[in-house]
Amino acid sequence: MSAGSVKGERLLRRLQQLGAVGRDEAGRLVRLAASDADRAGRDLLVGWIRDAGLEVAIDRIGNIFGLWREGSDPQAAPVLVGSHIDTVIDAGIFDGCTGVLAGLEVIETLKELGFVPARPLALAAFTNEEGVRYAPDMMGSLVTAGGLPTDEALATIGTDGTLLGEELRRIGYAGDHEPGFLRPHAYLELHVEQGPVLEREGVPIGAVANLQGISWQRVTIEGEANHAGTTPMSLRRDAGLAAARIVAALADRARTSNTPTVATVGCISFEPNAINVIPSRAIFTVDLRDPDEARLREQEQSLAAHLDVVAASEGVTITVERLARFEPVTFDAHIVERIEQAARSRGLACRRMTSGAGHDAQMMARIAPSAMIFIPSTGGISHNPREHSADANIIAGANILLDVAAGLASELKGRRDW
Amino acid sequence: MSAGSVKGERLLRRLQQLGAVGRDEAGRLVRLAASDADRAGRDLLVGWIRDAGLEVAIDRIGNIFGLWREGSDPQAAPVLVGSHIDTVIDAGIFDGCTGVLAGLEVIETLKELGFVPARPLALAAFTNEEGVRYAPDMMGSLVTAGGLPTDEALATIGTDGTLLGEELRRIGYAGDHEPGFLRPHAYLELHVEQGPVLEREGVPIGAVANLQGISWQRVTIEGEANHAGTTPMSLRRDAGLAAARIVAALADRARTSNTPTVATVGCISFEPNAINVIPSRAIFTVDLRDPDEARLREQEQSLAAHLDVVAASEGVTITVERLARFEPVTFDAHIVERIEQAARSRGLACRRMTSGAGHDAQMMARIAPSAMIFIPSTGGISHNPREHSADANIIAGANILLDVAAGLASELKGRRDW
Repeated sequence: MSAGSVKGERLLRRLQQLGAVGRDEAGRLVRLAASDADRAGRDLLVGWIRDAGLEVAIDRIGNIFGLWREGSDPQAAPVLVGSHIDTVIDAGIFDGCTGVLAGLEVIETLKELGFVPARPLALAAFTNEEGVRYAPDMMGSLVTAGGLPTDEALATIGTDGTLLGEELRRIGYAGDHEPGFLRPHAYLELHVEQGPVLEREGVPIGAVANLQGISWQRVTIEGEANHAGTTPMSLRRDAGLAAARIVAALADRARTSNTPTVATVGCISFEPNAINVIPSRAIFTVDLRDPDEARLREQEQSLAAHLDVVAASEGVTITVERLARFEPVTFDAHIVERIEQAARSRGLACRRMTSGAGHDAQMMARIAPSAMIFIPSTGGISHNPREHSADANIIAGANILLDVAAGLASELKGRRDW
Repeated sequence: MSAGSVKGERLLRRLQQLGAVGRDEAGRLVRLAASDADRAGRDLLVGWIRDAGLEVAIDRIGNIFGLWREGSDPQAAPVLVGSHIDTVIDAGIFDGCTGVLAGLEVIETLKELGFVPARPLALAAFTNEEGVRYAPDMMGSLVTAGGLPTDEALATIGTDGTLLGEELRRIGYAGDHEPGFLRPHAYLELHVEQGPVLEREGVPIGAVANLQGISWQRVTIEGEANHAGTTPMSLRRDAGLAAARIVAALADRARTSNTPTVATVGCISFEPNAINVIPSRAIFTVDLRDPDEARLREQEQSLAAHLDVVAASEGVTITVERLARFEPVTFDAHIVERIEQAARSRGLACRRMTSGAGHDAQMMARIAPSAMIFIPSTGGISHNPREHSADANIIAGANILLDVAAGLASELKGRRDW
């Protein structure tokens, strides 16, 4: 079912306009949560929401909602579309903003087309999805889903020593609504893939059926510092060497497992970090992801077992700290099918896929049937000024969002009846 | 032949006194070359040299000499004993100072005993052996041996932006003598082992027969930064993983080679160094040492070949920068035998060994028959406040130095006749 098409030019223009807000002296896009730059971005967005004739609502964690209380039952649970507008440091302009502005575009288009929904439609821009200034990430949607008490979230101290609650008040986005006040009928999020799959396969639309589980750990290895020239190989307790063995084995296991498991060591440091001293300490991070919880746990266990092996063989002590852990999320199968149907109707190739990154949709899936639409990321690049998705992809993705949102908003029946 | 014994108490007291000079606010011993702390240490040493009735001579690179122009031919080439008194940051008190103060003790004892040498004896304290503030290390002896022009060495810019020549002038140790003015008949250096071998074997004296060749390289790997969650293992160009493979293989090769080769990766860094980003760049250092030049070259070549393999298999680009390269040094076999004889005469166990670290003796070996005497390092620890050697070891080592120096100084014949 097609309910018309979005005004692509307006959507693309807004993406550029929002992307120009929050540039630092070096021209880098830095719109960290609850900063002055974030306020400027929020103000721009709220203006557009008002211009579109939507009712603006802010909750206590600063999530922004644009409500179109229209339909045969204006009190029914709304179909919610959205994402986030905070960014990382030196960001691209598409991550998050594409989903928020496409959501606004979808509702505005439906209004303009005279579409009469059965239930309200609403837009959401969640606070602090990136988690750069305040941890954890996906905070606004996590609080909305009841996964973190609001006051605890507001008491978060940022990397710059600020308090999130105070900063939200300072920028004028500490709202009155209790997070979760708007319990959606369904949640939809359009997002750039941030990976290479769609582009490589030449497919413009991804129907995101699930989201990987994420396991973040910090591994600390204690060995013994000694002179690099005078300590025979057999007498060494080399923390750096132990780390290297683990890093290599981790990748080998993920590569040969014939599963979608990905394993990454992104950070490492040695102490004392001198050319002629055997490292006494090595610290590195492990990022493990898999769409299947059992497999993810298996990977964690096999890493733990390997740490024991290396500790014994290299004579080092290894400790592990868990930094983050999210179970895999399975999105609503019916909504995923609707995304595929919409793509078919518009003659767009579509593939089911797994999200490798975390998104607000994974939090919203706890309280409402949810799914995501992916569009290609040029070169798979994200969190980078070179982040890009072709205009045609953005417009195609917005139109799929339009079709699925309109379809869901056309029905008053509950989820079980879809 | 025993010519008596050193006054152990005086030697140990001076070691403690010199070790108290150059402490920073935190109590750390930091006596970097040509610093105020170095001046204070030099002043103390020069006072002791004068007190012992020796003639003080300073050369243009700041090397300090104490000359005992005695003997049947006072113009003959002297037997030179010595080491250095500059330190690393947060050093122990034994590295270098043991050799200098034992050398002084030896000459002073011989004077006091009424020993009449055939040729002069002299003490040397070489400038900037550690190379912490000014590169390269072993600079004073390198210049003495003609391996680096004096003016080039004086023009060295330090890590703090200072000029070595100016700093030497400022602290009053820019002397008039041309480096190399004192061409020794032989050079002897007593030093703590800085490794675990003597202590582990319960042997108090090491007769150092040779010194490892050293090869320092910096390896830079360029891969591609990408999202850790969305980039399949098969599409990665992970610079950090490539580094880990090389670090592990390097150690494996050294371990299984059944040679004294040692291989160390002491420094590493990843970029962008973020938990959820595949490293685009990894930089690490390689410290390779072997007493045999052919084997050292073989290790370098096999590392280079392995870099090519990893570059191809991981899809990364690898470049190598040579940071330092010293060929192995073989010390004078006759002097090494004299050290062994002296130990036998005193009833001390002795073993031939290889120096794993660099020392002034390796430079002096270019211009005079040279050798070193090692004494045990407690726990093999060096360049550390916990650096230690037992009193009895220090006194035993000084007595061996006394015996060998007195023996060499008793002969007027040239080297070929020993």
